[in-house]
Amino acid sequence: MTSGLPFDDIRNLIEALPGPDEAAVAAVRERDVQLTKPAGALGRLESIAEWLAAWTGRPPAVTRPLVAVFAGNHGVVEQGVAPYPQSVTMQMVQNFAAGGAAVNQICIAHDLGLKVFDLALDYPTADITKEAAMDEKTCAATMAFGMEAIAGGTDLLCIGEMGIGNTTIAAAMFHGIYGGEAADWVGPGTGSAGDVLTRKIDAVSRAVALHKAHLKDPLEVLRRLGGREVAAMAGAILAARMERIPVIIDGYVATAAAAVLHALNPNALDHCLAGHVSAEPAHAAALAKIGKEPLLSLGMRLGEGSGAALAAGIVKSAALCHSGMATFDQAGVSGKDAE
Amino acid sequence: MTSGLPFDDIRNLIEALPGPDEAAVAAVRERDVQLTKPAGALGRLESIAEWLAAWTGRPPAVTRPLVAVFAGNHGVVEQGVAPYPQSVTMQMVQNFAAGGAAVNQICIAHDLGLKVFDLALDYPTADITKEAAMDEKTCAATMAFGMEAIAGGTDLLCIGEMGIGNTTIAAAMFHGIYGGEAADWVGPGTGSAGDVLTRKIDAVSRAVALHKAHLKDPLEVLRRLGGREVAAMAGAILAARMERIPVIIDGYVATAAAAVLHALNPNALDHCLAGHVSAEPAHAAALAKIGKEPLLSLGMRLGEGSGAALAAGIVKSAALCHSGMATFDQAGVSGKDAE
Repeated sequence: MTSGLPFDDIRNLIEALPGPDEAAVAAVRERDVQLTKPAGALGRLESIAEWLAAWTGRPPAVTRPLVAVFAGNHGVVEQGVAPYPQSVTMQMVQNFAAGGAAVNQICIAHDLGLKVFDLALDYPTADITKEAAMDEKTCAATMAFGMEAIAGGTDLLCIGEMGIGNTTIAAAMFHGIYGGEAADWVGPGTGSAGDVLTRKIDAVSRAVALHKAHLKDPLEVLRRLGGREVAAMAGAILAARMERIPVIIDGYVATAAAAVLHALNPNALDHCLAGHVSAEPAHAAALAKIGKEPLLSLGMRLGEGSGAALAAGIVKSAALCHSGMATFDQAGVSGKDAE
Repeated sequence: MTSGLPFDDIRNLIEALPGPDEAAVAAVRERDVQLTKPAGALGRLESIAEWLAAWTGRPPAVTRPLVAVFAGNHGVVEQGVAPYPQSVTMQMVQNFAAGGAAVNQICIAHDLGLKVFDLALDYPTADITKEAAMDEKTCAATMAFGMEAIAGGTDLLCIGEMGIGNTTIAAAMFHGIYGGEAADWVGPGTGSAGDVLTRKIDAVSRAVALHKAHLKDPLEVLRRLGGREVAAMAGAILAARMERIPVIIDGYVATAAAAVLHALNPNALDHCLAGHVSAEPAHAAALAKIGKEPLLSLGMRLGEGSGAALAAGIVKSAALCHSGMATFDQAGVSGKDAE
C-alpha cells in the first residue's frame, strides 16, 4: 500500500482475483468416482474436496490449518450498546494467549493452529454515530496488516474476531450495504437486551443515516461503519485468495468483512466457505446475501473463530476421505450393477 | 439371554432403564455460567456437555470414542431391490479392515476407535416378502451379540452399519412401525432408481402387508422385517444405556434400530444423539418420529457410521470446551454489566 490513494491498490487487487484451478477439480472428480462408495454418498464432503482442490491447485489436503483471530475496539460502545465493558476485549486476548477460551479448546480438538492479532486496542475506532470509524489510510493499512497476518503459511484459514461492540459495527455495515431497517440487522450479540438493545438499534440507525451519502462504495462502508478487526479480516480473506489458501468464515462479524469483498466483486468469496450460521438472528440473511450455505447450524454465537474452527474438522475429514479412501480396484470391491 | 422366552428379558430390560445423572448435569450448569463466554453462546455445544454428563455421570469428557459398525446380509435382495451385489457387504468389511473406507478416514480425522462386526454374512436373513427375517431366538441372540460388542469399553459410542439391501429393510421397519405408504419410506439408498426403486417400493409394501397382523409389537417388527445388523445395533444401544455410555446414531438404517427401542419405551433413546440427517429422503421424518434433531446436515447417505463419526468431532469439542475453558475468575475477565 505505498502508491496512489490507499484504496486504489485494493480496488485493483479485487478486479484481478485468480480463479479456481479447473484441472485440480477435474482430477478430484475423476478420482471420486473410483472411491469405494456410491457416487455422491459423501454429500457435501465431496464438494468440499473439489473446493479445496480448486483453491489450492493440488489434491485435497489440510496439513497446516490455522485459526486467525483479529481483535479490535470500537468508539460506538460509548452509545451504551454492549453489556460488557470494553476492557474485556484485551482480557479475552490474554485469555486466548493463556489457552482459556472456547476457541483454544476447539483448536485442540481438531489440531488447528491459532494466532491472535490485537489491533491497537488502546485506540478504539471513532464512534460511528458521530464520524467515520477510520480514515482511509488507517483502514487500508489495517487491511494490509490482515494480509500480512497469514504470511506464516497455512493451507486452511479460519477467520474470526473478538471486539466488544462489534456486532453493532457489523449490523451497521449490513444495514449500510443491504438496506432494510436497522432493526432487521441488530440482534443480542453477546447478550444485549431491553434498553441496551434499543440503544443498539438506535445507534445503527443513526450511524447509517449519518454516512448515507457515501455507502454505495463498499470500502467506504468498511471505513465509515467498520472497525479495525473487520478491515483486517477483509485483508486476510483477500490475501488468502491471492496465495491460494481456502478460507472458512466464522460468524456475524466475520461475515460483515466478507460482505464488503462480495459487494466489490461477487466472485471474491469463491474461495470461502461459511463455517456456520450463528444464533445472531440476522446472520442467516447475511449469509444468503453473500450466497453461502453454512456447514454447521448449532446455535452458537460466540465469535472468536469458534464456528469456523468447528467446521474445520468437517473440512479435514473431507480431505482425508478423498485422499485416503481406497478405489474399487484397490479394495477388490464390486461396483454398481456388478453380478 | 438364558431364561424364559428370549424377548422377555429384553422387554424387562427396556422397562427398567437407568435415568440421567441429575447431579452431574447440575454440576455442568454451575460451571458453565462461570466460563469465559456469554451465557448460552456455545449453543448446542452446551447442551451436549450436559448430555454427556447426564449419561456418564461424570464431568464431560470423551477419552475412548468408538465407532461400531455392524454388517449383515438380507434375503430381500432376491427381489432385485439393490444396485450392488450382496458380495459387496463382505468386500466392504474387508475394506474397513484394510483402512480403505470413508469411515476409516473420518476416524483418523477425529481420533476415534473403530470396530467392525460381521454377522453371519454367509447366512442372509430370510426374504421379508416371503417370511420373517429371523426367528425369535436368532433375533434375541443377535441383540445380545450387539450388547457384548461394546464390552471392550468406550465413553462415546457411534453406531453404524453396512449391508447391501438394508435400506429396504429399514424402510419396511419404519413403514411397519409408523404406517403411511411404502413409498413414503423408500428412497434410493446406495443408488436405486427406475425399475430397482419400483421393485424396492413393491417389496416393502408386500413385506409389511404379509406381516401386518404382528407389527404392533416393535420386537416383532425387528424380527420379521429387520436384519442381523439392525438387531445388533438395537442391542448395542440398549447395552450402552445400561453401562452409562452416550451414543451417537448414524443414518437411516441405524435410526431403524433406534426406532424399535423408542417404540418400546419413548425414553429409551434419551442417551442418544442423532449424528446427522442423511440424504435418504425419509430420514428426516424418521428422526422426527423418534424426537431427535440431527447435529449435522451434509447430504451424506453412506452409512458405515460415517455421519455419526463426523458428529463425534463436534461432541469431543463440546466436552473440551466445557472442561478446558477458563472461568471468568481464573482468566481475570470482567463479567456482564461490569464497570
